[in-house]
Amino acid sequence: MTPSTWGVREARSALGPWADDLEDEETVDRYAAAAWSVIAEPGDGVAGALVAAFGRLEALRMITGDGLLTGVADARTMARAQERWRPRIDPGAVAAALRTARASATRLILPGDREWPEALDDLGVHAPLCVWVRGDPEHLVAVRPSVAIVGARAATAYGEHIAVELAAGMVSRDVTVVSGGAYGIDGAAHRAVLRAGGLTIALLAGGADRAYPAGHTGMLADIASTGAVVSEVPCGTAPTRWRFLQRNRLIAALSDATVVVEAGWRSGSLNTAGHAAALGRPLGAVPGPVTSAASAGCHRLLREYDAECITAVDDLADMIGACAGDARAGRGSAAEAPAEADARRVRDALSSRSPRSLADLARRTGLSESDVSGRLGVLELEGRARRSAEGWMRGG
Amino acid sequence: MTPSTWGVREARSALGPWADDLEDEETVDRYAAAAWSVIAEPGDGVAGALVAAFGRLEALRMITGDGLLTGVADARTMARAQERWRPRIDPGAVAAALRTARASATRLILPGDREWPEALDDLGVHAPLCVWVRGDPEHLVAVRPSVAIVGARAATAYGEHIAVELAAGMVSRDVTVVSGGAYGIDGAAHRAVLRAGGLTIALLAGGADRAYPAGHTGMLADIASTGAVVSEVPCGTAPTRWRFLQRNRLIAALSDATVVVEAGWRSGSLNTAGHAAALGRPLGAVPGPVTSAASAGCHRLLREYDAECITAVDDLADMIGACAGDARAGRGSAAEAPAEADARRVRDALSSRSPRSLADLARRTGLSESDVSGRLGVLELEGRARRSAEGWMRGG
Repeated sequence: MTPSTWGVREARSALGPWADDLEDEETVDRYAAAAWSVIAEPGDGVAGALVAAFGRLEALRMITGDGLLTGVADARTMARAQERWRPRIDPGAVAAALRTARASATRLILPGDREWPEALDDLGVHAPLCVWVRGDPEHLVAVRPSVAIVGARAATAYGEHIAVELAAGMVSRDVTVVSGGAYGIDGAAHRAVLRAGGLTIALLAGGADRAYPAGHTGMLADIASTGAVVSEVPCGTAPTRWRFLQRNRLIAALSDATVVVEAGWRSGSLNTAGHAAALGRPLGAVPGPVTSAASAGCHRLLREYDAECITAVDDLADMIGACAGDARAGRGSAAEAPAEADARRVRDALSSRSPRSLADLARRTGLSESDVSGRLGVLELEGRARRSAEGWMRGG
Repeated sequence: MTPSTWGVREARSALGPWADDLEDEETVDRYAAAAWSVIAEPGDGVAGALVAAFGRLEALRMITGDGLLTGVADARTMARAQERWRPRIDPGAVAAALRTARASATRLILPGDREWPEALDDLGVHAPLCVWVRGDPEHLVAVRPSVAIVGARAATAYGEHIAVELAAGMVSRDVTVVSGGAYGIDGAAHRAVLRAGGLTIALLAGGADRAYPAGHTGMLADIASTGAVVSEVPCGTAPTRWRFLQRNRLIAALSDATVVVEAGWRSGSLNTAGHAAALGRPLGAVPGPVTSAASAGCHRLLREYDAECITAVDDLADMIGACAGDARAGRGSAAEAPAEADARRVRDALSSRSPRSLADLARRTGLSESDVSGRLGVLELEGRARRSAEGWMRGG
């Protein structure tokens, strides 16, 4: 295999009609992205670092050359990565993945594409190198505000009831509901959104063209036709335990906040919650009877992760309210002016239900009472905070 | 009425056999305490300040004099207090309260008595001026560690089940269970302790001799014969809404920690929880179904008061574990050496169930990782912390 394997001709052939409107350079770039998706497992930090350092195509040419790879990590790490990748360096597999994608109306979206959800970039070197989208990829950028409603497959009637309530409440507030398409809580949340005519996005651990679980074939088709079914692994790929865990980071990253409705003590949803916490995204958990094993993971989040206790739609709306509208601005917090950052912290600390005193808000924001007072004045003028006899509340 | 009304003769006559072994000075002092209990409502801060400034007897003589009272507050506050007290300045009522107490084997315990629970002094000018104890007052000082298990009268079967579990678990750990003697959660907790042969203390809003509620007459008698039934109002006094609220501060103050098992959105238990938080005592809440109105107050504590989520006996033991043993030392934290305070913070941050990393402990304690590490070394030597593969845990 030589560098020319990844040339313009091969790229145009594999991409087929998708390359029709593309310049040569764009064509090989998309082809390289598809190739990386086939070659590297989700969340492969060495691949991410290599692509970040050399670009998709150059990195691809590097790893398919015969020489010892040197690049972004120590020699041993690079050698191990190369060993992982080598069996998958197969232009035929890339062409097949693209064919399957076209056949199932699954689009390839790359960082830099208009439809690329920038929220995923918060994952750094662990960000996906591309995503495959069944449905309209526009939904990925119209996704804000969004909330991940996730939980156990082995949900109880109680948990599914709450998932439905929360999901329907999000639709009525124009919030996109992100979940994992699984049985139990995920499915209850997706279905409630579909019934209410809202926007929901399913992130799968296998290919976006594969209905997994099979019992959710119809539901996933409905999601694809009104929202989007998304995966970072190519079409035709089977889900594995690793891919489920990595998929969870995408759920957390794509959402402004994550709430776990029911989860056992060692549920995979806690992994999603951990990603949300690591990304600094608000994390909530719905309590349940302490006698219910299906709520044990949620209580663990409340005890050990300082998750917010979510009891109703309003609590969830409060939690994500702060992210709505100014989410993009909030992302690049380094670029945010201090005054705006302070205003956002004050706004975040306000509740739409419980009036809060200046002292309480100062404690919650870590600002002085006079700073809080100043920010509240501006927020009040903007209609985003309001005064009541008992204290300050969220307005607007 | 003249100052001589509160002289030695009156005091000896009212105290009866209780004065037999007392010096004159002690006699009038006890008599004055009983009089204050009759005259001032629970938590009367003006009375507390006056007694603190002038002593029980002198303060009593001041308020029963005819002149305008000047003392510890502005003239208007003092005049209003005097107006409140005047109708109750009645040596006959004091003598009657003492007679009723003797008849119901209810003892009068004063600050300074060996049986006085110093924990109550944390209430400052709102500390009770005395307490009336039906049962053995020794239990009030052998009370540590102790936990208040409180909650709604309108409890569900779920709530009562959890209250029983927690209370029985406390007995097996030699923890005294404090509660309010009410129907619902309080009663379930008290009864579980009685069944398990543990120590429980009921704090009543009315006189310690009155069984309130009447349906708990037998239970309160059982508590009095093995533990103690305590009130700050004199025997024969009926409970009122105000006295319930003030009684709640005694529950919180007498306990090293407070856990609310079930509570409606506006339950009186939240008042107890508020007192515990104000006193800086650990506060826990048991979650329940978000669909249960009986758990709404608990979820409110989790959301708004940063209450700890209590799901099992171990969680509760963790929460009060830190107070056990070194509670007295912990009280006067100003007098505590910084090294001891740091060690206690580290010990408090350890869990007996979940191993925690140095970084996590540093975050929880607000200490540097190296400080945490140093304290852990000492705690490990003392057998109070132990190392596991996944991190540090509480030991001993």
